[in-house]
Amino acid sequence: MLNAIDKQVLKEVADLEGIPKGAYNIRKNGKLLGREVSANINIETNEKGNGIIIDIKPGTVNESVHIPVILSQAGLHDTVYNTFIVGEGSDVTIIAGCGIHCGGKESEGHSGIHEFQIKADAKVKYVEKHIAIGDGTGRRILNPTTKVFMAENAQMEMELTQLGGVDEAKRFNEAHIGAGSVLLITERVMTDGDQVAESRNEIELVGTDSKTNIVSRSVIKGNSTQDFYVNLTALAKSYGHIECDAIIMDNGSNQTIPALRALHPDAEMTHEASIGKIANDQLMKLMTLGLDYDAAVNRIIQGFLR
Amino acid sequence: MLNAIDKQVLKEVADLEGIPKGAYNIRKNGKLLGREVSANINIETNEKGNGIIIDIKPGTVNESVHIPVILSQAGLHDTVYNTFIVGEGSDVTIIAGCGIHCGGKESEGHSGIHEFQIKADAKVKYVEKHIAIGDGTGRRILNPTTKVFMAENAQMEMELTQLGGVDEAKRFNEAHIGAGSVLLITERVMTDGDQVAESRNEIELVGTDSKTNIVSRSVIKGNSTQDFYVNLTALAKSYGHIECDAIIMDNGSNQTIPALRALHPDAEMTHEASIGKIANDQLMKLMTLGLDYDAAVNRIIQGFLR
Repeated sequence: MLNAIDKQVLKEVADLEGIPKGAYNIRKNGKLLGREVSANINIETNEKGNGIIIDIKPGTVNESVHIPVILSQAGLHDTVYNTFIVGEGSDVTIIAGCGIHCGGKESEGHSGIHEFQIKADAKVKYVEKHIAIGDGTGRRILNPTTKVFMAENAQMEMELTQLGGVDEAKRFNEAHIGAGSVLLITERVMTDGDQVAESRNEIELVGTDSKTNIVSRSVIKGNSTQDFYVNLTALAKSYGHIECDAIIMDNGSNQTIPALRALHPDAEMTHEASIGKIANDQLMKLMTLGLDYDAAVNRIIQGFLR
Repeated sequence: MLNAIDKQVLKEVADLEGIPKGAYNIRKNGKLLGREVSANINIETNEKGNGIIIDIKPGTVNESVHIPVILSQAGLHDTVYNTFIVGEGSDVTIIAGCGIHCGGKESEGHSGIHEFQIKADAKVKYVEKHIAIGDGTGRRILNPTTKVFMAENAQMEMELTQLGGVDEAKRFNEAHIGAGSVLLITERVMTDGDQVAESRNEIELVGTDSKTNIVSRSVIKGNSTQDFYVNLTALAKSYGHIECDAIIMDNGSNQTIPALRALHPDAEMTHEASIGKIANDQLMKLMTLGLDYDAAVNRIIQGFLR
């Protein structure tokens, strides 16, 4: 069922050697390649047939769902609408991600629109990795959207990673955080060549004592550009922190535009940003330890993106 | 020539007891109240008659110019266009500022549009204070604009202060910073009641090794709102730092929206923001030292705005 390219892609986006354990849904070139449900996690195609509904029973703990997407068909632009219903008090890991293998001149693209309904006291770890590989010259395009609705006392940790090969990425994250809930977002993006990546984030601290921490780490090589926007709005007694760090290499450029909107008198918001080249003293230190220039740069970038 | 109200206003906006030393131009209710030039600093009315040109000779050092504005006429909305030409290698202090005394029901407003042409190696300290006093109920409106054009290796320090009584303020600062030049902006704004203050800043790091440091300190009392925008664009090897801190009291609200645009690979930009109430432990410390609650709050705010 999986060919060599599929296996390579799955390994890259989901760290999978073949078919995953537990519930999964593998989509390839716009079609279902394989699906498995578990006693607590149901997966079914939605009414419109343009996506899946992942329904996680209340109280499901220590289970995972894999929903990787493989794209290897020249000219295909695939859009999928997935809904995740994470039941009360559950504690699950969701591993998504899209791998493009491009072998020709035509562009290939995937837009995954993911909606999360996270019920009270639920805990979700969401891991999403995007890569593109292959010798083709066609543009590889990934436009992910996530919409998160968190009830009370829920926790969500989002790890969003795009480490190479993607020519165009337009991310959009939207979140509404209920009372006592916590949302952590960590985005890591590395671009090179003429790649362009944009990330827009609309985050609302809606409930009392809601919290968020948004971390963006960008490495910008070649002539690539990365733009990062956050619109963080506090409508309640709440706490929000944004941290945006970008390393510019070669001829890269970056725009970092956070908006902190404290619309409630008990809102507390902080932000830190740092954009620039790798510090020379950091490089020197590693080089005096015996690394050559490229190895030292590489070591610093690996640490920065970890 | 100065009545009691004039003297009170001059004291508040320019720390002056009567007529200043050195060059000055005092404007009252849209008209010239007094002017003095010096050997090195010329002041004349511009061609259109809607402002003044302050021409500072190259090499002028340790001199100051006072250009306060007094507004005490109900219903008057005064707009003035002033141009400052700061000659090469000079080192001067410019003290501007507008004081409104409002005694009636009608609104009063002043819009000072100030353009600075700062020549190579010049050094300028620009101090601008805005206040409004008086028992009247009319709205007091101040909309200052500053446009700064800095040649090479110049320095400018701007201290912009609005500590009370102003109902509406829309500030716009624009700056273009040449090679080796440094611009420091410190803005301190305290609002109360239903006051509204907005500050928009468009700062361009144009020349190699240009630098800027932009500090905003906001205290937001009552139902007042303050919004702070910076658009910092780096077009060269340059360094920019933005620091925005806001203390929210009572029912105040704040939006802080910095944009860091690193459009040159050797740009280095950093930002820090912090919005929130006064930390409880800070208050406690002062109160255990014998201050009551209000005195402790006041002490913290004074320190924050210093």
